[in-house]
Amino acid sequence: MTKSFTLSIDTLGSETKINDVLKGLNQSLLRNINYKFQLYGDEKLIKRNIDKYKRLITSSEIIDCDSYISMNDKPSEILKNKQSSSMYLAIKSVQDGFSDSVLSFGNTGALMTLSLLNLKTMDGIKRPAIASIWPNMKGDSIVLDLGANTKLDKRYLIDNAVLGACLASILFKIEKPSIGLLNVGVEDNKGRDEIKAASDELKNLSKNSMIKYYGYVEGNDISLGRTNVIVTDGFTGNISLKTAEGTAKLFQSHLRDAFNSSLLSKLGFFLSSLAMKSVKDRLDPRVHNCGILMGLKALVVKCHGQSEYRGVSYASDIIYSLLENNVNEKIQGYVDRIRV
Amino acid sequence: MTKSFTLSIDTLGSETKINDVLKGLNQSLLRNINYKFQLYGDEKLIKRNIDKYKRLITSSEIIDCDSYISMNDKPSEILKNKQSSSMYLAIKSVQDGFSDSVLSFGNTGALMTLSLLNLKTMDGIKRPAIASIWPNMKGDSIVLDLGANTKLDKRYLIDNAVLGACLASILFKIEKPSIGLLNVGVEDNKGRDEIKAASDELKNLSKNSMIKYYGYVEGNDISLGRTNVIVTDGFTGNISLKTAEGTAKLFQSHLRDAFNSSLLSKLGFFLSSLAMKSVKDRLDPRVHNCGILMGLKALVVKCHGQSEYRGVSYASDIIYSLLENNVNEKIQGYVDRIRV
Repeated sequence: MTKSFTLSIDTLGSETKINDVLKGLNQSLLRNINYKFQLYGDEKLIKRNIDKYKRLITSSEIIDCDSYISMNDKPSEILKNKQSSSMYLAIKSVQDGFSDSVLSFGNTGALMTLSLLNLKTMDGIKRPAIASIWPNMKGDSIVLDLGANTKLDKRYLIDNAVLGACLASILFKIEKPSIGLLNVGVEDNKGRDEIKAASDELKNLSKNSMIKYYGYVEGNDISLGRTNVIVTDGFTGNISLKTAEGTAKLFQSHLRDAFNSSLLSKLGFFLSSLAMKSVKDRLDPRVHNCGILMGLKALVVKCHGQSEYRGVSYASDIIYSLLENNVNEKIQGYVDRIRV
Repeated sequence: MTKSFTLSIDTLGSETKINDVLKGLNQSLLRNINYKFQLYGDEKLIKRNIDKYKRLITSSEIIDCDSYISMNDKPSEILKNKQSSSMYLAIKSVQDGFSDSVLSFGNTGALMTLSLLNLKTMDGIKRPAIASIWPNMKGDSIVLDLGANTKLDKRYLIDNAVLGACLASILFKIEKPSIGLLNVGVEDNKGRDEIKAASDELKNLSKNSMIKYYGYVEGNDISLGRTNVIVTDGFTGNISLKTAEGTAKLFQSHLRDAFNSSLLSKLGFFLSSLAMKSVKDRLDPRVHNCGILMGLKALVVKCHGQSEYRGVSYASDIIYSLLENNVNEKIQGYVDRIRV
């Protein structure tokens, strides 16, 4: 049996080009043939670009929107003035049951606010979290929260562990993914009180075989791939993610300078450029960086504001896979067992 | 006038080789000819290795130590059992006025505990901080605290701003270094209450021209070099630093794999290996990574546990420069003005 899912795409309010959106969706459609798309945006622009993707045309509905939410729009203004924006309407469609999930490249704060307001959190989850798939030495891991909720609170950390474990379980096809709690050291006495309390509770849940808790992990363990899931609060996670992005850019910039420093190294660079490309693909946020808003009654995904088509098709595939594997039912099951 | 300063070096309890220590100190001595060294460690081993550094022999005193603090020793045990260790004696020498500063490659927690206990904090500074020189696109910046004090507190953040500004002012030769406060966004309403309160106070100090406060910065701004100083609490700073180290390692590892993937890219790698080396030198923690313990009555510096001689000479130069420029008097001046 093949299931059909509908994805609402907010195509406006970012620097992602419409052709990258359409090409990416088309690629994902070739892999997930029962996918349906609702394209929220500039109808004329979409129609001008969709022609070369025959299959996509038959699986898509275009919804013309006369406004969009910009990166600088404040949540308070959005609720008043942007109810006909592409982002608002994409979310509304899910709320009204016409679509299963939302993909956007735009303003993260607005997406979070509108999703929370219109879709609400799942029963038993107090605050949503933003999860991301982070490349590491061994493959990938899930890191969350990356900035949805900056408050440090035991309850939220436990919720994040559950959300992350469900995500990793589906995306990495692991029955019980290992969960690490991000801290400044691995000894029991390290870190803040809320983290120690969360660690104690995760140990208990682990004893009851509800989850597989590894213990504390440190910042460098993310890239080492020490655990399948890394749990932290939205403040620490956001700074950690952005520090990593900055470091990767710094590394690329130094490397470019170094390669340009002599004729021989330029030749070397030319010969190894294909190899370099694979590194770029693997670590470039435009290709693989998307934030998955977890804990809402429907799945909402935010991709990099300058996504390339590969990033779009990657995100679209992930959403399909999560929907196909009933991610939210799975989470609800976990939450119900844990909160008994 | 050339001043003379004495540096106590704890040569034991890490994977840094004695020859790297001696070669590094010797290089620093050639640049800072009035430097004196007290070498705490295994006298026989030091004597066997110091022979080729004639100048270093005449400027050094070797203090034989019958024990050392290992990476796993707990602070409580150290105070009871390790009073004749190389680290303890190196710090004691500063406390007793026989030396000006301490350099160690060993157990950071032990170094912090012993320094705090024996050297005490400066008047007006409640808790020390660990600062580091972080490479960025434009040069270097100072980031602190990297893990001395994981509590989030307005007072500590202000202290860190002062400590960081003094350090940057001397090391980068800037009269008033720009200070950024690490946060999850740059808007006024972002982040935790303590950070908002610290930001308000830093704005006031900036209005009185005491400091040059830039405002909030995000994780990626560290590598971009947005400000000369980046202020944060020890929890966030530690995770940010370790995430960056992990990301750099991941990048290097992917690059190595990519270069090994074909004969052409191997040739490319060979031709560009000199260029690669400069990137490695610039970003490798073994070369330039040292944590400067700030806010104590004397300067204490912790270098990477596997330092190379270049890392040792780099740290040794930094210490000389800070001592020569009366770093602690400068800090005290700032603190006295701010706390009026």
